[in-house]
Amino acid sequence: MSSGDTDVFAALAAELEPAVLTAGEGIEPRYLGDWAVRDESARPAALVRPRTTAEVAATLKTCDRLGAAVVAQGGRTGLTGAAVPPDGCVILSLERMDAVGEVDHASGTLEAEAGAVLERVQQAADAAGMKFPLDIPGRGSCTIGGNISTNAGGNHVLRYGMMRNLVLGLEAVLPDGTVLSSMNRMLKNNAGYDLKQLFIGSEGTLGVVTRAVLRVFPKRPDVQTCLCAVPDMAGLLALLERARSDLGDTVSAFEVMWPSFYDYGTVGFGRRPPLPAGQAAYVLIETEGVAAGNGEAALLAFLEQALAHGCVADAVAAHSMAQRAELWAVRDSSGELQNTMGPYIPFDISVPIGEMAGFV
Amino acid sequence: MSSGDTDVFAALAAELEPAVLTAGEGIEPRYLGDWAVRDESARPAALVRPRTTAEVAATLKTCDRLGAAVVAQGGRTGLTGAAVPPDGCVILSLERMDAVGEVDHASGTLEAEAGAVLERVQQAADAAGMKFPLDIPGRGSCTIGGNISTNAGGNHVLRYGMMRNLVLGLEAVLPDGTVLSSMNRMLKNNAGYDLKQLFIGSEGTLGVVTRAVLRVFPKRPDVQTCLCAVPDMAGLLALLERARSDLGDTVSAFEVMWPSFYDYGTVGFGRRPPLPAGQAAYVLIETEGVAAGNGEAALLAFLEQALAHGCVADAVAAHSMAQRAELWAVRDSSGELQNTMGPYIPFDISVPIGEMAGFV
Repeated sequence: MSSGDTDVFAALAAELEPAVLTAGEGIEPRYLGDWAVRDESARPAALVRPRTTAEVAATLKTCDRLGAAVVAQGGRTGLTGAAVPPDGCVILSLERMDAVGEVDHASGTLEAEAGAVLERVQQAADAAGMKFPLDIPGRGSCTIGGNISTNAGGNHVLRYGMMRNLVLGLEAVLPDGTVLSSMNRMLKNNAGYDLKQLFIGSEGTLGVVTRAVLRVFPKRPDVQTCLCAVPDMAGLLALLERARSDLGDTVSAFEVMWPSFYDYGTVGFGRRPPLPAGQAAYVLIETEGVAAGNGEAALLAFLEQALAHGCVADAVAAHSMAQRAELWAVRDSSGELQNTMGPYIPFDISVPIGEMAGFV
Repeated sequence: MSSGDTDVFAALAAELEPAVLTAGEGIEPRYLGDWAVRDESARPAALVRPRTTAEVAATLKTCDRLGAAVVAQGGRTGLTGAAVPPDGCVILSLERMDAVGEVDHASGTLEAEAGAVLERVQQAADAAGMKFPLDIPGRGSCTIGGNISTNAGGNHVLRYGMMRNLVLGLEAVLPDGTVLSSMNRMLKNNAGYDLKQLFIGSEGTLGVVTRAVLRVFPKRPDVQTCLCAVPDMAGLLALLERARSDLGDTVSAFEVMWPSFYDYGTVGFGRRPPLPAGQAAYVLIETEGVAAGNGEAALLAFLEQALAHGCVADAVAAHSMAQRAELWAVRDSSGELQNTMGPYIPFDISVPIGEMAGFV
């Protein structure tokens, strides 16, 4: 520990309770990177795991005063190394701020703290008969704060838009410790500048998101899933246009997988590929009807026409929830890494750590 | 014309072609306010009606140099007086920048200039088999630039969100003439800060929007419309919650009208009220199915249950396009003012013009 590190730790210790503060040498390796990039030789000065927005503010204000870099961490499910701490920095993990509120049916919203894991938010909406539509393979580990900071897209972006479209209100702490609170619950609210937009997608560079008001949606019951093998790029664009025109607003997912990813997500996990390998792309298409109805017949008719047109070389539709899960497992394989290989994936660190500083 | 005005006009004349520039004394009265507030005694220095982004930039740069106020105008359909020009200002009307591009089916987008009238954008989407979902009573006069600058909500905000959710790319000119162009067509694009968000909803105070890439959506064919009379506020909230839970994702409009507005939109226009007056609120509900189907039966079943529950005192459903138009006419009555009363509505100017300066 350098003397500068000691100064930073001492300053934080003067502001924070011991329970939220860990000195550099006591920091567990999992805080030294993300799912893809970890630097075991990193020497952060301290780890802060605040329980309140006030503790986040005290941390940032102290670090600002001392000029110490801060690395905000959510679920560390990124694959770009943005969570790798430079030497002497303070790691700010939001993992203890994980409260998830109840669905407010009148406004169609749900409040969550930044450290809440996405899957828990999905479950809270589901338990109230609603749906929180953001969904990405890291759902079991990634956090709402990370979803906001990266403006996550996810499997249902075609139907529900980016995370930006799912955030109605936000609380964030500026680098100097100022708390900006705009926990709006109204869909139609145009009073003043919408400053919260700046914090969505800016990767923590402008401030740390601490809480959010999220939109929840009515469930759509008639879910149909299929996997298509596409022979070439022209076919891929044609398939997207046909899906939009023929299946219209029911298309909720159109997930393209290149051959290398498809192989990795099937044989790479010892699974039998749902369709033979060797095509230019594989597309998982999901439709959602607004009521139980003729979704299956509509999807099968669409696939028949796409096969006849030639933009699809082969296709398979799920006829049960188990088959649906099998198809999604291929797409979700990037999120399974953590389960199969432990919290740290020993990919080569292909980006020099020095270049990561820009993310801090 | 004051000498200051002469300076401003001369400076603009040195930068712009005569065809886009009108001196203060030649400005027609319609440029002196909006649908509700007009100041016939206003003495703007000049009116600029640019045809290109470069002309917008030249105008703003010149005004910035001279310290002249600028009032940006779209369709002037506002009701707050924001378009009223203070003395000595330059009116910047976007009405000549009204190009509407073709729908790009691969990206699901359409490009429009700021002065394009909303209804023309709706028609362009419709002609391509798609739908641009923003809809407000002023659709025949209001412009895309105004819709963006005010972050318009509109009749379908429940289903499609605010204008912010419908803008993928934007071009805007800063007060010093700098052109910021971010004409992105990708739904998933998180590269860098999303600066365009700042111009959405900021009423022209940060810059003038000149062009935008807009999202278009698949049409939903099974449209059902009804009008409900609600006895009290508790019933209104109960009705919204029931609509969301029972009709789910099909609810595309839930437009609440207070008794005074309902009377104005019916007997005020010599129309027979679709439902008797005297209730606490009137709600126009519209549903859209993703395929032609059982929408009518679902809506009627919903209304029966709402009547039995008591949150609805009376209701009427449209059984034809003509009846649907009759119901919407009540809600759209604020937009009919222009047609029935000419371009200028002689409301009392209840806000002193001095207070309008904040909007400029």
